[in-house]
Amino acid sequence: MNARNPVEFYFDFSSPYSYIASEWVEAVAARHGRTVRWHAILLGATFQAAELKSPVSYPVKREYALADFQRSARFEGVPYRAPERFPIPTQNAARVFWWLADREPERAAAWAHAGLRAYFTRGVALDAPAPLKALCAEAGLDAEAAEAAWGDPAWKARLKAENDAAIAAGVFGAPSFLVDGELFWGNDRRAQLERWLATGPF
Amino acid sequence: MNARNPVEFYFDFSSPYSYIASEWVEAVAARHGRTVRWHAILLGATFQAAELKSPVSYPVKREYALADFQRSARFEGVPYRAPERFPIPTQNAARVFWWLADREPERAAAWAHAGLRAYFTRGVALDAPAPLKALCAEAGLDAEAAEAAWGDPAWKARLKAENDAAIAAGVFGAPSFLVDGELFWGNDRRAQLERWLATGPF
Repeated sequence: MNARNPVEFYFDFSSPYSYIASEWVEAVAARHGRTVRWHAILLGATFQAAELKSPVSYPVKREYALADFQRSARFEGVPYRAPERFPIPTQNAARVFWWLADREPERAAAWAHAGLRAYFTRGVALDAPAPLKALCAEAGLDAEAAEAAWGDPAWKARLKAENDAAIAAGVFGAPSFLVDGELFWGNDRRAQLERWLATGPF
Repeated sequence: MNARNPVEFYFDFSSPYSYIASEWVEAVAARHGRTVRWHAILLGATFQAAELKSPVSYPVKREYALADFQRSARFEGVPYRAPERFPIPTQNAARVFWWLADREPERAAAWAHAGLRAYFTRGVALDAPAPLKALCAEAGLDAEAAEAAWGDPAWKARLKAENDAAIAAGVFGAPSFLVDGELFWGNDRRAQLERWLATGPF
């Protein structure tokens, strides 16, 4: 175990619990001398690999989950407005993330925040080209280049490779946190992650 | 909202997260002037009603869940030894619970603790008549009467009615906590439950 390993943070742009966790993960990591390495993934891919479905696809659990998203956001003090269309496909937003990630990881993380906040506080349709392109511009990116990237087979392949890598690492849902080889799944594993960072294996 | 409403605690004798929560729920409730009303249920019934399955019935999630049971127990400082046979049918243990609950709720709660601890620290087979009967005797119950109760159509019907009532209350998994009309699902909702008890709705 290396005390300076980053916290590998796996998120999907359409995952409410990923959004909530994205608002605390950097501060929590920093308090323990860690950085965060962001990984945009597609829950559709990890769910398929693990034969899982979204909690909102089950009849009774759906109502609970929709209320729990809001309560969990309030619990963490995170602004949240349930998007009218939910969930949505997020491959284009994720490809923009990876397009940025190699060259400018800090801009990629900033884009992750921009996308998650836009969807979960203003309902911006990340799956529709026009609003996504406008959001890129608003976030200070070259919107034309971003649009070209999300349609480029190279970045489609990159996202697929990142999904496959996440699945190979044992990720089956989001948010997931992988630190020092230990996997934590869910916004609600915050306390366990914090203990791990503070004291090591328990 | 009545500050003296009890915490309604729904558990299954074969649920690891229910066992972990059973070890802290009374202390948490007491700190906030609440009592706990225990409800033995069958996850098989709530899962069926909500079209859900156990996390250990999915290929990838299974490995994570089995490790998370242990880590979550350590996190809460609760002794835990993974039972060799898991999960097991728990209707007989649950019927003994309800047989006790009307007349002696405190003995019913003590039986819940005895059953959960026996299964999750010693692997006692709650689904087999001989070890269950021995456990009843060890727990200070009239073992013959307990055995008669779990085979009695009246207590079978009572357990079914309690499962139906839990499902009607929105319960789809265990542990679940219902307090002041608010439902919390999962051992990992402890912090949210504590805030609710401390400050009311948030």
